[in-house]
Amino acid sequence: MKPHRILSPLGVMLTVVFLASGGLAFGAPERAQTVEPLTSWNDGKAKQSIIAFVEQVTKTGSPDFVPPPERIAVFDNDGTLWAERPMYFQLLFALDRVKALAPQHPEWKDTEPFASLLKGDVKGAMADGMKSVVEIIMATHGGMTTAEFETILKDWIATARHPTTNRPYTEMVYQPMLELLDYLRVNGFKTFIVSGGGIEFMRPWAEQVYGIPPEQVIGSSIKVEYELRDGAPVLVRLPELDFFDDKEGKPVAIHQQIGRRPIAAFGNSDGDLQMLQWTTAGQGPGFALYVHHTDAEREWAYDRNASMGRLDKGLDEAQAKGWTLVDMKQDWKVIYPHETSEQ
Amino acid sequence: MKPHRILSPLGVMLTVVFLASGGLAFGAPERAQTVEPLTSWNDGKAKQSIIAFVEQVTKTGSPDFVPPPERIAVFDNDGTLWAERPMYFQLLFALDRVKALAPQHPEWKDTEPFASLLKGDVKGAMADGMKSVVEIIMATHGGMTTAEFETILKDWIATARHPTTNRPYTEMVYQPMLELLDYLRVNGFKTFIVSGGGIEFMRPWAEQVYGIPPEQVIGSSIKVEYELRDGAPVLVRLPELDFFDDKEGKPVAIHQQIGRRPIAAFGNSDGDLQMLQWTTAGQGPGFALYVHHTDAEREWAYDRNASMGRLDKGLDEAQAKGWTLVDMKQDWKVIYPHETSEQ
Repeated sequence: MKPHRILSPLGVMLTVVFLASGGLAFGAPERAQTVEPLTSWNDGKAKQSIIAFVEQVTKTGSPDFVPPPERIAVFDNDGTLWAERPMYFQLLFALDRVKALAPQHPEWKDTEPFASLLKGDVKGAMADGMKSVVEIIMATHGGMTTAEFETILKDWIATARHPTTNRPYTEMVYQPMLELLDYLRVNGFKTFIVSGGGIEFMRPWAEQVYGIPPEQVIGSSIKVEYELRDGAPVLVRLPELDFFDDKEGKPVAIHQQIGRRPIAAFGNSDGDLQMLQWTTAGQGPGFALYVHHTDAEREWAYDRNASMGRLDKGLDEAQAKGWTLVDMKQDWKVIYPHETSEQ
Repeated sequence: MKPHRILSPLGVMLTVVFLASGGLAFGAPERAQTVEPLTSWNDGKAKQSIIAFVEQVTKTGSPDFVPPPERIAVFDNDGTLWAERPMYFQLLFALDRVKALAPQHPEWKDTEPFASLLKGDVKGAMADGMKSVVEIIMATHGGMTTAEFETILKDWIATARHPTTNRPYTEMVYQPMLELLDYLRVNGFKTFIVSGGGIEFMRPWAEQVYGIPPEQVIGSSIKVEYELRDGAPVLVRLPELDFFDDKEGKPVAIHQQIGRRPIAAFGNSDGDLQMLQWTTAGQGPGFALYVHHTDAEREWAYDRNASMGRLDKGLDEAQAKGWTLVDMKQDWKVIYPHETSEQ
């Protein structure tokens, strides 16, 4: 890990705070290591609004000063911190699992959504929408111990490649957002993920890639049961949904698991709308930002009519309420970390 | 707040780490502020085993060294960090709420468990055990927004007095355990509460009293629903149990909310047994400690036959596995913080 370029005593203290807060990001080899804030952001309205907000809440004596323990920032994951095309990466993981498990499930040849999937017909498999998704997730994510699942997932995340870019999924994170996470933490914020994706799908790599420790990763979950096997305790994953962390679920999960209203929220879809509403409805300052996917060349362009990551109501509300909108094409100099070393 | 007595550069760094980790304890006026570890503990086996464990996992180069992000310590609350007699303090809160709400519920005069309660017959009201408890909790903790509940609770915790000691409940915390929390945090541990009590019952005061921020307080919860009222978002508390954080529930909650196995666990009852089993079943070092209530004069003495806070199976397992047993009468110089200023 290259050292951060901080030299002043204040900087040293901030580094210590940064490290102490668990904000240690290593292992993303091409990641730019600098604390000059937001270097991959063009100097437009979005960048300026972020910096203005952070200065407003961190300046001692400011009427909007927020003490560090209350500087909670929440981030959606899919489409906000990393890409979500051609579909949520967790679904791609589940599809790989269906293929791997198929020999143990001969009945899948005649059972939907598995039959279509095994024939390579993903669209057909998804014909029943959320019902299909839930069936696939339960069949592939349940029925094993938490330790077994973690091993499978770590192996997948280390070896699987994105179908069009051929990069590891952990390299399809957004460089400007990594810099934003760092910038907030250096300014005393505690950063959380609040995602519709599975908690246990994200935790094994979120610390290394985002600098966000497991206890600050909130997401959807399936039920887990405590059991003694030959006297040794294990946690068994049941094929049953525990909590779906999307839309109205996000403020609920924030309340139950963080217990404080965030002062900054970052999302990219209508699934994040309630989280942004809740964050900006407190008595003190509240910052809301939407990443708007506008770059069909370097990433993907979609909003009101997307089936995954739709941004429709949220786009209207952002414009009506003056929330920050990131225009990926205009605001971001680079999209992915590997581009910083190629510049 | 009196300054901590740390002067070395390492100490300064540890203080910064301590503060950055949210470990800021203020407002408990009689609390001893010193980092000489565990001054209220007599120098016996219990104290020695704690210090030996902390040195074992924090010493660079030790084969059992644990990196700071993995130094997770979990504490039960009732009977471990504060007292639980004549009954769990949350039940005393609920009983006060029943009295306050009775005028709005004339039907309670003829409905159990409320009828007995209102006549002052607590034992009669509890005749149905957990069923009675759940009914009382739901009737008094649901049906309002989270903000309203917090206001009621903060008012109660600031004004209510314990029925026999006549002290505020927040002064009935155990001074030796406050010192233990500090000692662990100064050594890079992140401290969590994992309690059978309600999350929202503990969070409003846990930061001030224990130095544990809301996001590190895990407990039982009732369901919460997101709602827009005149365009303003609120979270409404439903009279429905969401999660009961006791026995097998504790490792489950630890897994879902922390996502790492703790390396140290502290409890006082059979309700904590699975948490201690889970903590000590990892591949690395794991420390388990039971507070044994042995002091009928300064506190209360109870174990195998207690109706609340029973320590029976746990006592056997602690002895069989060599877990640390704190004999409150022998091991603790003082019980409550106010005694430190009276010495």
